[in-house]
Amino acid sequence: MKFALFNENQFGVVEGNEIVDITDLIAWDKNDVQRSLNNFFENYDVLRSQLEETVKGGHKYSLADVSLRAPVPKPSKIIAAPINYILHQQEMNAALTVDRLGVFLKAPSSIIGPGENVLLPFKDRRVDHEAEIAFVIGKEAKDVKAEDAQDYIFGYMGLMDITVRGKEDRPWRKSFDTFTPIGPWIVTSDEVGDPNQLQMDLWVNDELRQSVNTNEMIYGCYKLLEEASRVMTLYPGDIITTGTPEGVGPIKKGDTVRLKIERIGEFSVNVKEKAGILV
Amino acid sequence: MKFALFNENQFGVVEGNEIVDITDLIAWDKNDVQRSLNNFFENYDVLRSQLEETVKGGHKYSLADVSLRAPVPKPSKIIAAPINYILHQQEMNAALTVDRLGVFLKAPSSIIGPGENVLLPFKDRRVDHEAEIAFVIGKEAKDVKAEDAQDYIFGYMGLMDITVRGKEDRPWRKSFDTFTPIGPWIVTSDEVGDPNQLQMDLWVNDELRQSVNTNEMIYGCYKLLEEASRVMTLYPGDIITTGTPEGVGPIKKGDTVRLKIERIGEFSVNVKEKAGILV
Repeated sequence: MKFALFNENQFGVVEGNEIVDITDLIAWDKNDVQRSLNNFFENYDVLRSQLEETVKGGHKYSLADVSLRAPVPKPSKIIAAPINYILHQQEMNAALTVDRLGVFLKAPSSIIGPGENVLLPFKDRRVDHEAEIAFVIGKEAKDVKAEDAQDYIFGYMGLMDITVRGKEDRPWRKSFDTFTPIGPWIVTSDEVGDPNQLQMDLWVNDELRQSVNTNEMIYGCYKLLEEASRVMTLYPGDIITTGTPEGVGPIKKGDTVRLKIERIGEFSVNVKEKAGILV
Repeated sequence: MKFALFNENQFGVVEGNEIVDITDLIAWDKNDVQRSLNNFFENYDVLRSQLEETVKGGHKYSLADVSLRAPVPKPSKIIAAPINYILHQQEMNAALTVDRLGVFLKAPSSIIGPGENVLLPFKDRRVDHEAEIAFVIGKEAKDVKAEDAQDYIFGYMGLMDITVRGKEDRPWRKSFDTFTPIGPWIVTSDEVGDPNQLQMDLWVNDELRQSVNTNEMIYGCYKLLEEASRVMTLYPGDIITTGTPEGVGPIKKGDTVRLKIERIGEFSVNVKEKAGILV
């Protein structure tokens, strides 16, 4: 199934070109969307058997008539993989890959949703697009082995890891407000199948910039969950993003960036300058 | 004033050797301590005028009879300063300091409180103590200048930035579960006065390992808030920690690490091995 946030803190199931509003049919606190989501993720194994029936009672909207929101607005953390594709390592002249660098963190405050604006904070520094497949934790996880990782993944979504190039630590370069667009929704693990065999493409305006199969990742999704969970306890709603392939490049004011992942979906964001440019 | 969490999600004011329980005297949800705290921080300017009266009605405990907890258990982020003292730069042979490295992030899941255990995850890697003064955000902040920073700081506390030495990115090396002991409580800004003029000492068992005045920081607390807030929106409850001075060194099973900061207080944690050592 595909789960989306839309309009004013509404929660829905995406079916074809429609979205079914289930906000009032499940336990949902509009004043704390992230906690409601986390409870939903955690209890999904129990809820899913009734969900088909529940969805029948929900009001249907055309997807074209709603505004999709970031599907996970305030996770307790965003864990990311540095240099997880060999050809990206080469284009960056990077000495080490994920197996030696471990994972890093992005600020949850950098999340935006489909159709929102990436705001460039600098006049004169290069800011890049990075296409990534990300997954959402469904259950608390610590010291989970790769072979058991699927049990802890609720589902998958697209993530753009917007990045300033330079010498600063990765969390600084990747945590500016608006630097983590996610979307368009979360597709559950069972519907995605193997996340390490998906075509992923990113366009800037009409130009295809990144195009890869996720089978080129050095650490696939399951191995990455193992690595992250041997360091940190993962909580429902936490996001793990898997690093970007080759083809990264600068974005500039007026660009539209579109990310499409097989079996997941596509979304785009617009690039603008931040009001009151910093440098 | 000094605010502490203690026993089972109770909130109190520390006065001398006593703690006054104000849990039932203010808006407080024991099921969501962090949200309750954030609301308290955000509304403190209004609440403080009545607080002296409120405290009179609270049950008093001797501090010796309660268990203090981490004063900020689940912040939305922990922002940290890499290399913020010149003599620490020299002992680490580090090329760059905070002004070129920006800030980085630690995982909120790594927080523990006074008297808890730091768990070493490795058999054969060096894990160090790092003494730091940290501050807690009181109000949402973005693009705040150093000269206005005091308005956004609720208060101060001690923080040990436990760190694995090695080539991995800082968030990995510093985000293992139990790697962020904080305490013993939060001392409000007005009671601390100038945070950039405080003596700070750290002992491992009876050996003094780090001893510095915070006036040696390259970026003082206010400048660091400016730097963090030009990247990220800061939320009430967020923690910013200021980097460690020279004198870092390894900790091992059986050690007790004690941090004392002038005008703030002191606390200690115990070092143990994690069950099921990783490497």
